[in-house]
Amino acid sequence: MFDKKTYIRRRAELKKRVGSGVLLFLGNDDCGCNYADNTYPYRQDSTFLYYFGLPFAGLSAIIDIDNDREIIFGDELTIDAIVWMGTQPTLHEKAHSVGVDCVCPSSTLRATLDKAVASGQRVHYLPVYRAEHSLKLWSLLDVKPGSEKPSAEFICGVVDMRNHKTAEEIVEIEKACDVTAEMHLAAIRGVRPGMHEYEVAAIIENAAASRDCSLSFPTICTINGQTLHNHYHGNLIKEGDMVLIDAGAERPSGYAGDMSSTICAGKNFSPRQKSIYDIQVASHLAAVDMLAPGVPFVDVYERSAEVICAGLKDLGIMKGDPAEAVKAGAHAMFFPCGLGHMMGLDVHDMENLGEVWVGYGGKPKSTQFGRKSLRLARPLEEGFVLTIEPGVYFIPELIDLWKGEGRFADFINYQELDKWRGFGGIRNEEDYLITADGARRLGKKIPLTTEEVEALR
Amino acid sequence: MFDKKTYIRRRAELKKRVGSGVLLFLGNDDCGCNYADNTYPYRQDSTFLYYFGLPFAGLSAIIDIDNDREIIFGDELTIDAIVWMGTQPTLHEKAHSVGVDCVCPSSTLRATLDKAVASGQRVHYLPVYRAEHSLKLWSLLDVKPGSEKPSAEFICGVVDMRNHKTAEEIVEIEKACDVTAEMHLAAIRGVRPGMHEYEVAAIIENAAASRDCSLSFPTICTINGQTLHNHYHGNLIKEGDMVLIDAGAERPSGYAGDMSSTICAGKNFSPRQKSIYDIQVASHLAAVDMLAPGVPFVDVYERSAEVICAGLKDLGIMKGDPAEAVKAGAHAMFFPCGLGHMMGLDVHDMENLGEVWVGYGGKPKSTQFGRKSLRLARPLEEGFVLTIEPGVYFIPELIDLWKGEGRFADFINYQELDKWRGFGGIRNEEDYLITADGARRLGKKIPLTTEEVEALR
Repeated sequence: MFDKKTYIRRRAELKKRVGSGVLLFLGNDDCGCNYADNTYPYRQDSTFLYYFGLPFAGLSAIIDIDNDREIIFGDELTIDAIVWMGTQPTLHEKAHSVGVDCVCPSSTLRATLDKAVASGQRVHYLPVYRAEHSLKLWSLLDVKPGSEKPSAEFICGVVDMRNHKTAEEIVEIEKACDVTAEMHLAAIRGVRPGMHEYEVAAIIENAAASRDCSLSFPTICTINGQTLHNHYHGNLIKEGDMVLIDAGAERPSGYAGDMSSTICAGKNFSPRQKSIYDIQVASHLAAVDMLAPGVPFVDVYERSAEVICAGLKDLGIMKGDPAEAVKAGAHAMFFPCGLGHMMGLDVHDMENLGEVWVGYGGKPKSTQFGRKSLRLARPLEEGFVLTIEPGVYFIPELIDLWKGEGRFADFINYQELDKWRGFGGIRNEEDYLITADGARRLGKKIPLTTEEVEALR
Repeated sequence: MFDKKTYIRRRAELKKRVGSGVLLFLGNDDCGCNYADNTYPYRQDSTFLYYFGLPFAGLSAIIDIDNDREIIFGDELTIDAIVWMGTQPTLHEKAHSVGVDCVCPSSTLRATLDKAVASGQRVHYLPVYRAEHSLKLWSLLDVKPGSEKPSAEFICGVVDMRNHKTAEEIVEIEKACDVTAEMHLAAIRGVRPGMHEYEVAAIIENAAASRDCSLSFPTICTINGQTLHNHYHGNLIKEGDMVLIDAGAERPSGYAGDMSSTICAGKNFSPRQKSIYDIQVASHLAAVDMLAPGVPFVDVYERSAEVICAGLKDLGIMKGDPAEAVKAGAHAMFFPCGLGHMMGLDVHDMENLGEVWVGYGGKPKSTQFGRKSLRLARPLEEGFVLTIEPGVYFIPELIDLWKGEGRFADFINYQELDKWRGFGGIRNEEDYLITADGARRLGKKIPLTTEEVEALR
């Protein structure tokens, strides 16, 4: 948690941006895994954290802009709760620590909102992403699940503030990035043929846990790097395999890091592996080179995709003009995802508020396969924190599908591609802050090239 | 997963027990942590696992007893899902692997249930424990959240089957117990003054993850063992502290282990610590000694509580007759929880189905402080798997509360107790299978006595 002044300042700024009405903040509750009391690790909603800082279940809050009131709703602990879960500050003490003077029992929130509605005030709320939020909106505002109407003004106010990271936020993010780098370095040093993927995942997660961090997302640690979000960890790692790792730390404050690395299982990469790896690195460096305020991120994405197409053309896997291939969408055979995403209190920052608002400034997204997965396209601004993570993937199911349809036969040499279908996938990922005149990499450096990986083996 | 014959046999048995109607099984979906796609580690509902074996999100199932039909409802993967998450067996293949021939799209479940209701069949469902279940019952059966009426027949059928573990289940549980023991042994060997609790928790969790296990519940690793379910890991461990660890492994099959140990931070326990530790051990051994079919577990609980009272009387902290103290409830000052619980596919097995059914055979629970937290009281039967975990706790908030009220002044010597209020808490826990003529400890042995702990330091 930051000093209370931070939260007071943020709420005051949000009030100005939205202008009128009542802003409703639903905190997250505990979620039972296989029964109610066997809970998943608690995680507060990030927007609640941003404006109210309190990482506790059972809280809601309102900002009544018209009447200049801020109230946190919750309940004091019972003696049973103290015996089982330990004592905590009182609700008053918690609220005071983030600059809020008024607290009320949870049971009074409905009446408070009823009064606001009766007096003609609009109650703004954000999109729901958990079933519990749907149930709460139903019980608080009679909004039937599935018919929620989140407030665009509220979303835009939050998104624009959270997109621009302050100095104290960048300090926290960089700490998360440092731990994230340690997770990758531990894996790069620890991988050996004969291990199972879950043993490497255990090394990665230990590097976070032993530094008082949790995971900012489920660890990807796989010999099948061609599956973008592969969470299976049961395979045996063999000599000659590559292991793709995508993993990140979350600080107790909630701020996230997110990096990827692709490692040779043995001491060295094969020449064949290097030939694709070098294309990924070239694409990565071309993207980093363009990062600066004012540059539309969609241009960075297209440039990184063109570099991949040019590299694959040199290998005979693609053909034709790389820029035209990207415009047509043929690159998505090998690069079917985006180039990067905003990062902050969420690893995909504010994904729950809508990527169109966060990464497109409200403009519509493409529906083209591959390009539609681009989470960020808008012109970059100072204070944005984002990831750079181009990849080169050989996905057998996609090869079979497109080959059967003869899709993009002008750009893809399917005969040559058949020789690579079992290659797997390569991704490397770093985190960047957009500065006044360019960009700065966040956190300790992890290996990016085959030579840098091999030097640590 | 077991052989398909296991699931076929289980479902056939359940049909006989419930007798008529349609049994509805709601599988668990993914749960977003801070946005929808940043999911917590997936965990299937345990009853779904028990009867249908499939650990995948997005599934429901019915057993139509009257028409002798079994159907699994779900949806095939899209190419986008395969690109991001990897390929999986088809729904047909999944269903076939657990002996179910009929699969239907999720969207048809509502109509199937409507038809059953229209033809006069009763639709049985189990208690809900996630908000998503409430929303599903609403959309499938028009049951308003909060007004669910779970089927007692369905609950009783499931509980009686799951309470009696088969040989193949015991093999899985014992594997989970072996890994659980390794987690504790790693911690006992690894704890040193100067470490933070989270560093020890990282050691514990690494011992599970590196053996392809997850955690069966959130790890307790604390110098404040007097808080029963203390999940805070931020304290520095100092010479002279004790560290209470309660942690368990869950196998990929879903079966759980659950053990506790209390460790000296330095090489040895102090005489003062040993004096309380020995009481816990005596209580533990007295309980284990009684385990056999036919013995009401409430008697085992009372015996273990009496041993604690007698030990504390010897130290001058309690007074009067130990058995009378336990009848009155005075022991709950130091032992405010139960002695143990059923364990299986859930670490507190079937807690979501109601402890009264699982641990009391449908008879009501006590409302007395302490005794009301006893999860298991019924006569033991062959095939039950349960934990034994008496504890001795000095809880400052509870001492202040009861002392202020003068509660149980005949049994508690508050003047002497004041000298122990900062002592902390001690718990050791093992897992047992009730056999034909007694009980057998499950899994590798972990230290139980101060001497056994010190021998590993």
